[in-house]
Amino acid sequence: MPLGSDYSGQSCSLARCLEIVGERWTLLILRDLFFGVRRFGDLQRHLDIPRAVLSARLASLVDAGLVEREPYRLTERGADLWPAVHALMQWGEKHESPGGPRRVFVHVECGTQIGLTGVCPRCEREPRAAELEMRAGPGATAPIRDDAVTLALREPHRLMTPLTG
Amino acid sequence: MPLGSDYSGQSCSLARCLEIVGERWTLLILRDLFFGVRRFGDLQRHLDIPRAVLSARLASLVDAGLVEREPYRLTERGADLWPAVHALMQWGEKHESPGGPRRVFVHVECGTQIGLTGVCPRCEREPRAAELEMRAGPGATAPIRDDAVTLALREPHRLMTPLTG
Repeated sequence: MPLGSDYSGQSCSLARCLEIVGERWTLLILRDLFFGVRRFGDLQRHLDIPRAVLSARLASLVDAGLVEREPYRLTERGADLWPAVHALMQWGEKHESPGGPRRVFVHVECGTQIGLTGVCPRCEREPRAAELEMRAGPGATAPIRDDAVTLALREPHRLMTPLTG
Repeated sequence: MPLGSDYSGQSCSLARCLEIVGERWTLLILRDLFFGVRRFGDLQRHLDIPRAVLSARLASLVDAGLVEREPYRLTERGADLWPAVHALMQWGEKHESPGGPRRVFVHVECGTQIGLTGVCPRCEREPRAAELEMRAGPGATAPIRDDAVTLALREPHRLMTPLTG
């Protein structure tokens, strides 16, 4: 289960990070936790993955100190991954979303949409996830499924706060 | 080979991105391309992975338009992943490198070390990879191996320029 040995020949902080979050599905699980999904069943239905896979990934994340249970929520160490999750998402928005961004993030304190880099152009700093509200962007497409989480995420929602689905 | 179907149920730009770069080793291959490694043999020795795995990953990256061959180099679409690679690395630097960052990045134009967010504090913008020089940081450890790439990367080196090892 631990991936540590896979990249053990790499003396690099990227490799250390990927040992913890590089397993398939792990970054999508973290994304859902940023979105405020907190229950195992909600994660399982929204991600549509086998329970055993989700259970193993969550156990790894708890072991690594990124997630607390239960309900599941990000620790500070886990929440520090927001800039990376946001940057990967922005690459997809730019290159794989022809209709424009599917989601946009607004800095709640000043009401300004943050830029590609994650920095608020008005406040000139990078808000933490909990300071952001996610809204549907111009490239938002019709949802592929109709589980409660998918439906709840169509509405504006503050990150890191429990999703009421 | 294509990972597309894995996340096909996810209408999300993070999932689209991970379909392209989420396979094991892919982000470390991209890292090496940012560092200026260009030859198959150098990538293979530095990453210490089977030739077949490297070959398959590079073929996927070429198919996806992130890499050109040969020698291997990032396209603009590939180079746009720098903020994500940098952000993942910075998480590792903060949380998995007790002696401080293993690597630091200096904005060549002004000589200023960029911050955790990737933004140059002096120029107040996020330099692209090609504008950065990588140097050993205070947390740099003795290299695990002694291949030419590992040795060359101990010296200051401008990203995206060919490594002479």
